Amino acid sequence: MIHIEQINKSRFVEFNTKNHDFGSYFSDHMLIAEYENGQWKDAFIKPYGPINIDPSLHVIHYGQSIFEGLKAFKSPANELCLFRPKENYLRFNKSAQRMCMPTVPENYFIDGIKKLVSIDQNWVPNNPKSALYIRPFMFSSSNFIKASPSDNYTFAIISSPVSAYYTNDIHVKIEENYTRANSGGTGTVKASGNYGASFYPASKAKKQGFDQLIWTDGRDHNYIEESGTMNIFFRQKDSLICPKLTDSILPGITRDSIIKLCHYIGIECEQQKISIKDIIQGMVSGEITEAFGTGTAATIASIKSISWRGTKHVLPDMENSLAARLKKELQDIQYRRVDDPFGWTVIV
Amino acid sequence: MIHIEQINKSRFVEFNTKNHDFGSYFSDHMLIAEYENGQWKDAFIKPYGPINIDPSLHVIHYGQSIFEGLKAFKSPANELCLFRPKENYLRFNKSAQRMCMPTVPENYFIDGIKKLVSIDQNWVPNNPKSALYIRPFMFSSSNFIKASPSDNYTFAIISSPVSAYYTNDIHVKIEENYTRANSGGTGTVKASGNYGASFYPASKAKKQGFDQLIWTDGRDHNYIEESGTMNIFFRQKDSLICPKLTDSILPGITRDSIIKLCHYIGIECEQQKISIKDIIQGMVSGEITEAFGTGTAATIASIKSISWRGTKHVLPDMENSLAARLKKELQDIQYRRVDDPFGWTVIV
Repeated sequence: MIHIEQINKSRFVEFNTKNHDFGSYFSDHMLIAEYENGQWKDAFIKPYGPINIDPSLHVIHYGQSIFEGLKAFKSPANELCLFRPKENYLRFNKSAQRMCMPTVPENYFIDGIKKLVSIDQNWVPNNPKSALYIRPFMFSSSNFIKASPSDNYTFAIISSPVSAYYTNDIHVKIEENYTRANSGGTGTVKASGNYGASFYPASKAKKQGFDQLIWTDGRDHNYIEESGTMNIFFRQKDSLICPKLTDSILPGITRDSIIKLCHYIGIECEQQKISIKDIIQGMVSGEITEAFGTGTAATIASIKSISWRGTKHVLPDMENSLAARLKKELQDIQYRRVDDPFGWTVIV
Repeated sequence: MIHIEQINKSRFVEFNTKNHDFGSYFSDHMLIAEYENGQWKDAFIKPYGPINIDPSLHVIHYGQSIFEGLKAFKSPANELCLFRPKENYLRFNKSAQRMCMPTVPENYFIDGIKKLVSIDQNWVPNNPKSALYIRPFMFSSSNFIKASPSDNYTFAIISSPVSAYYTNDIHVKIEENYTRANSGGTGTVKASGNYGASFYPASKAKKQGFDQLIWTDGRDHNYIEESGTMNIFFRQKDSLICPKLTDSILPGITRDSIIKLCHYIGIECEQQKISIKDIIQGMVSGEITEAFGTGTAATIASIKSISWRGTKHVLPDMENSLAARLKKELQDIQYRRVDDPFGWTVIV
């Protein structure tokens, strides 16, 4: 059961649509539900606002916390469109399982998002480069500091109008010392700790002038896994390749959509084990001409250069860029500017 | 600068010393300090109580969070004794660095603990098996949901009177699928995410009747690393062995103390790479006669059985148990029942 308590006065008028950081301004409402004594209590959609916590709040001490990210788009016909929300729901509950947390009922997640977006629909940008970023998350909310799973959990959904994550092509560096995720760990799920652990290596790279890292396998750092918080694709002649999923790669929904889109429009896209050496050789020989990251926040972010062991390999400017084409094709579907042959968009 | 605002009326009278879970009841005061615009603001010791947060609180989404654990003991002469707090301070700041967080000033950490323990000294148990568990922690406290390091941080110290963590000898299982930590990761520091990630494999083991797991290396699961949230030692004839520190093993302060104590009292204790096979063979042949975990919460927890691939290896009852002897020797120092030849105890 989802109860609704609406705000009296929208904060939307205060919101400066021209000058705001990604994910730092939030829409009028949030959804919140508590898990207690082995079951979920009623959910509430209510005015976005502060939560009271105890300093012993479990998540702060033991990081039992997961999240998802998806977007609501406004179509030219002013429809509110979600993109594959069921996929986020399924992955959220996989994350929950791996992090020893209760799964969340589908209606709290999917209907919760729909109701929230519907109530806050004036927050979904009209701008064809912007969207309402939706953040479902769950954290452990018992008040104790014993290192064991929490008894209580809080599920919540908040949303934030956002524009493009990366405004320029990005420069990345291949990381061979630090690891994002490892076999037997939590790399295939969206656990908060994966992100916190990545900030230090990423910030070292930023100080060297890179936008992001390319993560490699934790075993020998021979194989390419992800880039920053995105999945990664390379163009080899007229085809694409991307790392085959392992138990340390996040199965991105944008990644999956790009693969399916490629098959649909006739671009070959192979998932395979991709070694650093093959990519470097391919860039040197000119066989690898493009690289890009995929993710909900960034959609597709073109990679302009890849540095490895001190050498910067700059990718050429491609007239018939596959990254640009796929980004357009995907966004045309997301914003419902064209027919959606996959049934991915869900109209609220 | 640490400001102090004392409570009007202690909650100590309400505290039932006989029936409480580990770390679920907290002393009257807490310390709290905020990091903003690149610097620490004044710290405050004030009544323990709720904190107001925004649903976009960074730590909940991205797990940038670390902690320490240490204890205050009451000596027979009623002195308040801390055990090696400087070591916790140094490790805390190592954790901060790895997690891309600001380091905390020594006076906030050490003097903060001393002042807090002094003000809440009636909460330090008289019972020779109990102590006041002190929990310094820091979390990212900006309000945004972009996957980059937080700008703001909150440092806090809370404390909780605790008795023995394990009341019986424990039964453990060697884990060969899930990993706690990996080379290039955050296993050598006390990041919250390390704990959250371990709950699912640990809970699977609990369902099979084990108290804890023995974690093995993430590369091939051939070598023993830790047990649960403790470091691990084995007795081989009359000597001890423990896993040599790697970049995926937490450098425990109790571990270090046990090694130094062994050298002092003439027990051989070697740090080495320890393979699962050697331990299993040693238990089968009778050369390995004891195993125990070390940590602040548990001090020393004797391991009664170790299971591997479906076979349970029960360790014998030892009359001259090294675990029991070392626990007594260490606790005698911690509670200042004997002279402290190491200068480990710090009287508040």
